[in-house]
Amino acid sequence: MDSSYEFATEIASNASASLPKAQDFTRHLNQVSKNRLASTLKELYKYQGVPGMVSSASRRFLLTYLDCHGRRWVEIQVECSSCLGIPHPQVFPFETLSATILAHDAFPLDPPRVPKKSKSLLSWLFQSASPTTSFTIPKYVPNPTPTTIQLSTSLQYAAATGPPALPLFLREYVAKVYKPAYADWDVLVNVGNTDGWSKIINLIAEKGDAVLVEEWTYPSAVNSFLPYECEPVAIKMDAEGMSPEHLEEVLGGWDEEKRGKRRPHIMYTVPTGQNPTGATMMDDRKKKLYDICYVIICEDEPYYCLRLAEAEKKEGSDGNAAFIKALPPSYLYFDTEGRVIRMDTSAPGSRLGWITANPQFIERLTRISETSTQAPSGFATALTTTMLEKWGFEGYIRWLRGIKATYNMRKTWICDAFEDTFHLEFDQSKGLFPSGSKTITCYSKQPQSAWDEKKGLHGPGLVTFVPPTVSTCCYNRADVQVLFAPGWYFDGGGEHAIGGPGYGYFRLSFSIATYEETYKAVQTFSQVLDKFFQLK
Amino acid sequence: MDSSYEFATEIASNASASLPKAQDFTRHLNQVSKNRLASTLKELYKYQGVPGMVSSASRRFLLTYLDCHGRRWVEIQVECSSCLGIPHPQVFPFETLSATILAHDAFPLDPPRVPKKSKSLLSWLFQSASPTTSFTIPKYVPNPTPTTIQLSTSLQYAAATGPPALPLFLREYVAKVYKPAYADWDVLVNVGNTDGWSKIINLIAEKGDAVLVEEWTYPSAVNSFLPYECEPVAIKMDAEGMSPEHLEEVLGGWDEEKRGKRRPHIMYTVPTGQNPTGATMMDDRKKKLYDICYVIICEDEPYYCLRLAEAEKKEGSDGNAAFIKALPPSYLYFDTEGRVIRMDTSAPGSRLGWITANPQFIERLTRISETSTQAPSGFATALTTTMLEKWGFEGYIRWLRGIKATYNMRKTWICDAFEDTFHLEFDQSKGLFPSGSKTITCYSKQPQSAWDEKKGLHGPGLVTFVPPTVSTCCYNRADVQVLFAPGWYFDGGGEHAIGGPGYGYFRLSFSIATYEETYKAVQTFSQVLDKFFQLK
Repeated sequence: MDSSYEFATEIASNASASLPKAQDFTRHLNQVSKNRLASTLKELYKYQGVPGMVSSASRRFLLTYLDCHGRRWVEIQVECSSCLGIPHPQVFPFETLSATILAHDAFPLDPPRVPKKSKSLLSWLFQSASPTTSFTIPKYVPNPTPTTIQLSTSLQYAAATGPPALPLFLREYVAKVYKPAYADWDVLVNVGNTDGWSKIINLIAEKGDAVLVEEWTYPSAVNSFLPYECEPVAIKMDAEGMSPEHLEEVLGGWDEEKRGKRRPHIMYTVPTGQNPTGATMMDDRKKKLYDICYVIICEDEPYYCLRLAEAEKKEGSDGNAAFIKALPPSYLYFDTEGRVIRMDTSAPGSRLGWITANPQFIERLTRISETSTQAPSGFATALTTTMLEKWGFEGYIRWLRGIKATYNMRKTWICDAFEDTFHLEFDQSKGLFPSGSKTITCYSKQPQSAWDEKKGLHGPGLVTFVPPTVSTCCYNRADVQVLFAPGWYFDGGGEHAIGGPGYGYFRLSFSIATYEETYKAVQTFSQVLDKFFQLK
Repeated sequence: MDSSYEFATEIASNASASLPKAQDFTRHLNQVSKNRLASTLKELYKYQGVPGMVSSASRRFLLTYLDCHGRRWVEIQVECSSCLGIPHPQVFPFETLSATILAHDAFPLDPPRVPKKSKSLLSWLFQSASPTTSFTIPKYVPNPTPTTIQLSTSLQYAAATGPPALPLFLREYVAKVYKPAYADWDVLVNVGNTDGWSKIINLIAEKGDAVLVEEWTYPSAVNSFLPYECEPVAIKMDAEGMSPEHLEEVLGGWDEEKRGKRRPHIMYTVPTGQNPTGATMMDDRKKKLYDICYVIICEDEPYYCLRLAEAEKKEGSDGNAAFIKALPPSYLYFDTEGRVIRMDTSAPGSRLGWITANPQFIERLTRISETSTQAPSGFATALTTTMLEKWGFEGYIRWLRGIKATYNMRKTWICDAFEDTFHLEFDQSKGLFPSGSKTITCYSKQPQSAWDEKKGLHGPGLVTFVPPTVSTCCYNRADVQVLFAPGWYFDGGGEHAIGGPGYGYFRLSFSIATYEETYKAVQTFSQVLDKFFQLK
């Protein structure tokens, strides 16, 4: 981790030299955030003998106390290991933690279209018999540095910012992949994207606020603010995502008296692989949207690295660099003001994510964390940080590319399955999807025995879909789901609401099925539709 | 875990037969809680092919969808592994997790007063050379049951209630140790006590509410509700804790107009080892307080198992049973109505705790978790649950007893150190501590060279303390801290506020120092006091 540590310092100085600092957005804080004080006890952690934070050779503390008659503050230097009454690691039951993890290049960048063997889901893909590596985290590491991972520290009470090694990696990642356009951004760990968004609401939303969302959005994100009487304001989408014209119209024409609430100052957006339509927003659109509004843009990009563009097949750091270059830019890339709050997640189930934002927001979010989640689980941070250290930045990028190639392969399965099962026609959207979407409509493969003027050769259109631009990211939430998630679940409150036109939407997924199961699922779907439309 | 599963069922049926069900306390919910809906996507988890929740042999789902013309709901049974678009475990990087943990009986129940060897902190205590045990958690376990721990499930998205195995253990623990006085209590996991209390505030506190607290209380707990303009209302304490007389006086005399807020309906209390005075509330007092007020009692007991009474030295289940019997009862023991919300934590740094409460509160708290923390880290739950399974209930109780004996030994060190360093006098409290407290006042050990009528033989009283009734629980937060936490940090808002009388309080800890360090710390303290009072 030493190289990351140096890197972070270097990045910080380079960035400061040429980029603007964040503007002041504290006016966006809600009253509760303004009311928050620093935690008094947590201030004492500055004095704690945490290895590396204070020289481990001599744990000295600057001590001040006020005598009982208010006469004076007394300062004393004390060498003492007694600090904060926290438990001694010797009583932690865990002596070591170990893990076996897949190698960063376990998944090939160019998998075959059809699996060679189909006995198991994915292990046939592995380039070697057991592409794993192992590590052990002990309770104590001799001569620990500021970024050493050891259980005596990981499983101990700590500041809400978590162990220093993890944000070091995250800052390198953010700097290299997102390239924020201002100098003094920072990161703060949390226990996953849902937690991150919940804390952002707690940071800036007042009761009753309007929140701008895409017309199709993630239901859980809306459920997070609905109880606070905050109202989603749905902005129309086209094939690329949120419509700048409609956004300008909504903001420009906002009548506070008529609406009964102030003009929206918060946007929640999923620009990549827009859940659930699969749209991905590119550079120009993002810049345009950034420039339009003064609002705090809360960017949730669970599918970010898995956008299914032309797959890069080149190994090594050149291939990694090309991959990064081809990624759609984050809003951070255009964020010269420090107005964007970005949510990122590390892996499902680990409950470990982070927020990137301007320093005032990060400070207030840290105060929120101190009285709620505190630091993420020491188990999660120790194991995840060690895994990231093993892989390194380049290894982590290669891992993401391998996952992306795997999901690309699976997207191909489902599209091939549709092609084999149905008769397909293109671009017959009939207004069912955002304008400009490239649609595919499925018809029964068997031609009608008797030609019917009304029904045509293949009967009625059964289902129309947009080929996904992303696969389900293994690090993220559900994508479209075979027969499981009626489209109205994802309704941002526009015309798709149940009872109105357009609620016959389904959501298909291909993240989890084997090749055979994928085909079977599509065939089942076909049988269901035939039965429903009484075709057979 | 099978025996726990059976036990839980048995307990549930026995309990239902003889105990009352919880009353309805939904009137205590704040408006935000009432506004919360169930998560639409999470409802789909019912259909997910989670091993054991649905037979793994055939993953069948009952599927309903609404056709696009609103004509009908169609039900279909589908055998399909494609569910919810969640990532397939084959792409989780972690293949196995392993841990080496201390044996449940690593720490003796009757340690010597003075360490035999003093090279290391505690390892000399171990009865054998390496009292550890190891386990490995694989990605897949063949023929998994409802409570199997495997990474494919633990590291997967799941309901906010977490993996079923853990609440099974927790219910056994709550039933056997706390013995709630009503039938239909339940538990809900969270990411630690701070998170638990934060969610309880989110559940029942309206902006501006008054919250009853002990006059000395944990500052972090107050900081959690202050930003919501909730006000702590300090209730006086005596040696046993909160005063029933003062509580009745405050509630009975509450003038809503004068106070500008409604009568308090929430109490935050730390009945055992009351942080920071060390008081412990016993049966009669708890029952009396329970009976007085209609308020929701939020019980935070980080020191519960470590109250330093006469140590039980007997091994085995008889010794465990005696230990449990001697514990001060939880408020749950008197809770015939379901009016108590109890916070418990598993271990520091693991960020894993739970709440015990009535079923309506548990349901609403689950809704809160679904839009914030979701389930705790899969790493934490997998490792902690496996550790608890290894130890079993009896082993876990033995572990707690060993930790308690260890801290008892350390309390003895610090008391012995004080006795060696100072001249001690008893019960000269001078009103510095709650009435009825058994105090010890320290004087300089060296008699004055010349007897002084004013100063007496040993000079002025330097410091007065109450011998702790608890040690710092290794699973909990800071106890009194050598020279680190000025007493006003813990002020619940009463007369101890800084600037008023009584702010010369310190907080001493003995959780983390070696035998030598403990003596050195007390000697240093003595030198500081001499210097301060200009005695030498």
